[in-house]
Amino acid sequence: MTQLHAVFLNCTLKRSPAESNTEALSNKVVEWFDLLDVTSEMIRVTDYNVLSGVSSDEGDGDEWPLILDRIKQADILVIATPIWFGLRSSIAQLVMERLDGTYAERNEYGQFPLYNKVAGVVVTGNEDGAHAAAESTLFNLTHLGCAIPPNADTYWVGDAGPGPSYIEAGQDHPYTIRTTRWMATNLVTLARMLKASPFTDPIPAVDGDHAPGAAASTMN
Amino acid sequence: MTQLHAVFLNCTLKRSPAESNTEALSNKVVEWFDLLDVTSEMIRVTDYNVLSGVSSDEGDGDEWPLILDRIKQADILVIATPIWFGLRSSIAQLVMERLDGTYAERNEYGQFPLYNKVAGVVVTGNEDGAHAAAESTLFNLTHLGCAIPPNADTYWVGDAGPGPSYIEAGQDHPYTIRTTRWMATNLVTLARMLKASPFTDPIPAVDGDHAPGAAASTMN
Amino acid sequence: MTQLHAVFLNCTLKRSPAESNTEALSNKVVEWFDLLDVTSEMIRVTDYNVLSGVSSDEGDGDEWPLILDRIKQADILVIATPIWFGLRSSIAQLVMERLDGTYAERNEYGQFPLYNKVAGVVVTGNEDGAHAAAESTLFNLTHLGCAIPPNADTYWVGDAGPGPSYIEAGQDHPYTIRTTRWMATNLVTLARMLKASPFTDPIPAVDGDHAPGAAASTMN
Amino acid sequence: MTQLHAVFLNCTLKRSPAESNTEALSNKVVEWFDLLDVTSEMIRVTDYNVLSGVSSDEGDGDEWPLILDRIKQADILVIATPIWFGLRSSIAQLVMERLDGTYAERNEYGQFPLYNKVAGVVVTGNEDGAHAAAESTLFNLTHLGCAIPPNADTYWVGDAGPGPSYIEAGQDHPYTIRTTRWMATNLVTLARMLKASPFTDPIPAVDGDHAPGAAASTMN
Repeated sequence: MTQLHAVFLNCTLKRSPAESNTEALSNKVVEWFDLLDVTSEMIRVTDYNVLSGVSSDEGDGDEWPLILDRIKQADILVIATPIWFGLRSSIAQLVMERLDGTYAERNEYGQFPLYNKVAGVVVTGNEDGAHAAAESTLFNLTHLGCAIPPNADTYWVGDAGPGPSYIEAGQDHPYTIRTTRWMATNLVTLARMLKASPFTDPIPAVDGDHAPGAAASTMN
Repeated sequence: MTQLHAVFLNCTLKRSPAESNTEALSNKVVEWFDLLDVTSEMIRVTDYNVLSGVSSDEGDGDEWPLILDRIKQADILVIATPIWFGLRSSIAQLVMERLDGTYAERNEYGQFPLYNKVAGVVVTGNEDGAHAAAESTLFNLTHLGCAIPPNADTYWVGDAGPGPSYIEAGQDHPYTIRTTRWMATNLVTLARMLKASPFTDPIPAVDGDHAPGAAASTMN
Repeated sequence: MTQLHAVFLNCTLKRSPAESNTEALSNKVVEWFDLLDVTSEMIRVTDYNVLSGVSSDEGDGDEWPLILDRIKQADILVIATPIWFGLRSSIAQLVMERLDGTYAERNEYGQFPLYNKVAGVVVTGNEDGAHAAAESTLFNLTHLGCAIPPNADTYWVGDAGPGPSYIEAGQDHPYTIRTTRWMATNLVTLARMLKASPFTDPIPAVDGDHAPGAAASTMN
Repeated sequence: MTQLHAVFLNCTLKRSPAESNTEALSNKVVEWFDLLDVTSEMIRVTDYNVLSGVSSDEGDGDEWPLILDRIKQADILVIATPIWFGLRSSIAQLVMERLDGTYAERNEYGQFPLYNKVAGVVVTGNEDGAHAAAESTLFNLTHLGCAIPPNADTYWVGDAGPGPSYIEAGQDHPYTIRTTRWMATNLVTLARMLKASPFTDPIPAVDGDHAPGAAASTMN
């Protein structure tokens, strides 16, 4: 079977070696990937000097190019984020902003660099916000070129208000265990499909915009 | 080539025969589907008596079962919605609530009925809210079993505040023309892939929840 | 002390007499209002025939005008909603869409009818989505004219995935008890302030739009 | 009339002296504040070294304490943010995360430091996302203690897809001119009200949580 590679971007606010709940749940996905012959790589974004901006290289000490290079090697991209104030973390938002820079690149088919990658999300929080964090992130990734299998997310949140986090609460929540397995399995299935049979349709160029009537003769 | 079928659920607030901007943009996707040998079917949800609830049959005059039956025949499901107050319409929300009923069904692989369908969204509004409407809808559809290709949405919104709608102002908007084509092409490509090679991994049953260590011997 | 009146719109999907978790939590707010000399009125929207649309009277059996009349009598407006698929219910969205009709009315100061009302939200769900449901609803209400005190929401959600609802889970969650009290107190405080000293600045008319330089002589 | 002071946090991704569209629209609010005898202060957050975290002082070169001190001096707090990928910027999210630290402080009434401040938002983007950016931000600010008047936001966004930004395209947009004036007027009206008659109800302490029945004798 083709070897696949997964890159996890852990968007915790904490630098290593501080314990990260988001990493702990991400590691559960990694365990399934291990069983499914997918290699995994965990990048804690705060351990790098990632500058603000929307290009792929903001110069002057910017370490985003190192991360972007790893993302480009991935068959499966997982954005892992804690929830703060009901949304994905500032680090996860920063990652998306920097990925905006990839819109400037096209491959031989005229596709963005994230085309033919499969994406998933991992979300942890002590309460509420998992849907919001997951839905915006997966949607943004489809714009960048990623495909999304069914049940492409796993999350853990506690009940309303402040409370214990994922690690402290026991890592044994049945729903989260179930969705973790499911997410891992589906990401791998779709990634193998795209590896065997990638999207090759070119993204319509700006100049070539036209409605179907005008396009009929040229689109095939 | 395998014949594919697309079902559009137009979630406008207006009943037929009132003109629908959302339908007008949906029809642009249909034009591409025609060229790509995909048959299309447009269902205006407000023309049916769809009762509130979260089961697949709320009894007593409920016409949701008619719509659900059509959805089950689709290879490609497109939710088309106007924006009201920054979110998808109440009809689109009603559709999602009714789709909650499909969680109660499993196929021979233990999958929900929307597995192996591909989903996209069409959004129109006179201003702002397309990302919110699209991201929640696509994410919900992944939970129900749909897969999402890259660039699975097309939308038109005007600039800030009240103003003209799509038919009046948006039909020649280059960005929307471009994303419409792109969406149609990618939905069809992924739908053909899943037709040829569907997801067959069973959804882990609730009772069978377990972490990888415990699962290693049984998952293959 | 001035008598204040609160109107709750319970946006559950269930018709009376079915038990509503959202009503149960709303009733906790009512208990505080009782102590604070505020009268309360609970309207279950699904018990009325509210037609789809964005005007204040969609004709032909539409019972929204009955509800709108009650809203206009309120000093405090509370939208109470369950969460479905991470968002407010279709009924809550329908309520907002119908409130769009109030933009067509202006009082003697040129203000919309919801000006000088204070708004809060009650949200219940078995998991995740309270922030999303609350934030969109409160924001929409500010556009319609309501003012929002600090901590204007109370919610209960359980941990990730399916699970018991508010009533079954015991109604004794400390965070929710605390925020309920807080919400009630702050809504009443701000409502008394606005009763004593209402906003009287006119909403700038469309024709009168102008930037500060041009406006300096006429704005006072 | 009491002198009021407004603090704007410009959450653009760009450092000074780069031109900021968000600052340009914020300056329109400042013009109204000038006419209304409110002093204004513009802080571009990226010009400071604000570390990631959720406390009020992350040590080691962290300049957030300088900004927080200014926020505490404000009667009116305006968060101004560009839209990226449909949401508020990473810098705006960072600001909210850092404000989490204020939950650890209580004043003589047991209130958080942002109590009795009035909040508004300014949003700019070349397209879509203003509702999402505004609603999450205003809601978060109510949790932190701010009160929100009607129409507390102004925004400019262009139509769907990439395009010109506010300075280039939006400065004469009637809707944005109108909401800018409206926002400024209402923020000032409510801020004067709270200055004259602040919230003094204590936030219920965690230990003192109780339902109304138990509380009746002690709450007055």
